[in-house]
Amino acid sequence: MTGDGETGIVLADWGTSNLRLWAVDTGGGVRAYHRSDMGMGRLERDGFEPELDRCLAVMAVPADVPVLICGMAGAAQGWREAPYLATPCAVAEIADGAVRIDGTGRDIRILPGIAQRNSTTPDVMRGEETILHGLVRQGRSDAMVCLPGTHAKWARLAGGHLTGFRTMMTGEMFALLGETSILRHTVVAGDWSDGDFAAAVAESHGAAGELPAMLFGLRAGPLLFGDDAPCGAARLSGLLIGAEIAIGMAGDDAPLCLVANGGMADRYAAALTSLGIGFEIADSEAAVRAGLFAAAARIWPDRGFQDTTLTDPKGE
Amino acid sequence: MTGDGETGIVLADWGTSNLRLWAVDTGGGVRAYHRSDMGMGRLERDGFEPELDRCLAVMAVPADVPVLICGMAGAAQGWREAPYLATPCAVAEIADGAVRIDGTGRDIRILPGIAQRNSTTPDVMRGEETILHGLVRQGRSDAMVCLPGTHAKWARLAGGHLTGFRTMMTGEMFALLGETSILRHTVVAGDWSDGDFAAAVAESHGAAGELPAMLFGLRAGPLLFGDDAPCGAARLSGLLIGAEIAIGMAGDDAPLCLVANGGMADRYAAALTSLGIGFEIADSEAAVRAGLFAAAARIWPDRGFQDTTLTDPKGE
Repeated sequence: MTGDGETGIVLADWGTSNLRLWAVDTGGGVRAYHRSDMGMGRLERDGFEPELDRCLAVMAVPADVPVLICGMAGAAQGWREAPYLATPCAVAEIADGAVRIDGTGRDIRILPGIAQRNSTTPDVMRGEETILHGLVRQGRSDAMVCLPGTHAKWARLAGGHLTGFRTMMTGEMFALLGETSILRHTVVAGDWSDGDFAAAVAESHGAAGELPAMLFGLRAGPLLFGDDAPCGAARLSGLLIGAEIAIGMAGDDAPLCLVANGGMADRYAAALTSLGIGFEIADSEAAVRAGLFAAAARIWPDRGFQDTTLTDPKGE
Repeated sequence: MTGDGETGIVLADWGTSNLRLWAVDTGGGVRAYHRSDMGMGRLERDGFEPELDRCLAVMAVPADVPVLICGMAGAAQGWREAPYLATPCAVAEIADGAVRIDGTGRDIRILPGIAQRNSTTPDVMRGEETILHGLVRQGRSDAMVCLPGTHAKWARLAGGHLTGFRTMMTGEMFALLGETSILRHTVVAGDWSDGDFAAAVAESHGAAGELPAMLFGLRAGPLLFGDDAPCGAARLSGLLIGAEIAIGMAGDDAPLCLVANGGMADRYAAALTSLGIGFEIADSEAAVRAGLFAAAARIWPDRGFQDTTLTDPKGE
């Protein structure tokens, strides 16, 4: 299921901590892949172009092949700012908000993020909007999408539109509480218990409003019960994820789509399963690539991009 | 309102970060005060006795005067462990759980903490039980008591009994999120807005279960609205305290007593006032001293301790 076999475009996901590039043909088939750990967090503004050139040289990409980038490279502190679109919007519109990098020999564009300009709970995403676009292209136009991570996001898709989203700092909170707070004494990295995790998920999912009063028990439990206390790491993770699921789903009965992007998704899958909540898993990399490629087809209509990989829109 | 004028006992609150001592006469009147920053956190087990001796020498306390200590000196990692009493219990019973330090020339005893041996949300206190005892001695036998701090505690007193309590890591969470997390970029120490604080208190008090979804807005707000975004420090503090108040009060209609122990209590007072919740303020130092002295009267019935400072039990 590939196009003419030659590289038609390079798709790039340039995040805070790394850069991933796929050289694809005009049918969307991957011809080359490269990963660099030079994320936005390690680059000054004038460091982006040389890093991209370096990667494209490694991949032997000809000079006339365009590049489409999503992610933090488009942030104000990135290569060039691509101003946020605003909710609600059709996620396909990210193609229309792409900004072009001037002064390079190549046609390089960066997709915008999406902002929620809500006065009490404003929110922003950069990179996830492209995953969401990919999910829509895969046929998941109506869904509640959970994207686990340091800053997990829950996004509601309706008819291909992003109607709203919420970010929860679950991953960062787990690291802060487990490594830096008083709980570090009883949260031991590597310790795990599936049963303690599931029990904690159920507890905080059933009473998310009590979460702040549940955490110190991780310190008190081992003081009072010694080795009979629940596993600290599993319980902390379960309490945070259980509350996040309760808040993220918000009583919405849209089909739930869990975006798998590494080990964290396994925990979410275990949590949802233990709660009896049905969900579908989508691959993060396939989704971001599909989102980038579809945007490329809209940005460069004359280059003959046609996604032949989506014969079965839900097939992964 | 003093006794015979000579020092009858030394009362000591030995916490994690400091040691405070009061030499009082047999009527409870303070004759000398000393403070040391050699808290439990800075002492090995064999360091407690020399430090106490040093302080008593500074205060010129005779060798036959006993010492009663509350706080972390009685923890397992302290001077000598004073095993926890268990909820529910009369707070006056802490006197019966005091342990005596052997092998010193002086009569020195340490009061126990109180534990809540609840399997899902176990909790512990050391030091606060003595404040609670003091509050009961001051006539506050039936109350919901809020003790702000790094690890804030909400304790329910009924007929002089501690029926249950909950610890929330509000102060530590404020420091972690404001100084270490992604929010550090937008939470600026020293910045403050009373209006933004009150608005955040109202928001999280009204929807404590949504707290995890409110935090990232502190990052997104300034990105989207610049200087028009609410003050980060005030909003973070307000969100955490508003949720804490909702959880701590738990729909209980007992009179609320706020224990003032420094600047944090001012924020709680402002938050409660903005929510229209009535409360009484109790002084932390007066309460811990009253609790220690009343326990001393029970431990040493023949030494003639009689609290003449409590002519008006509610007077501060």
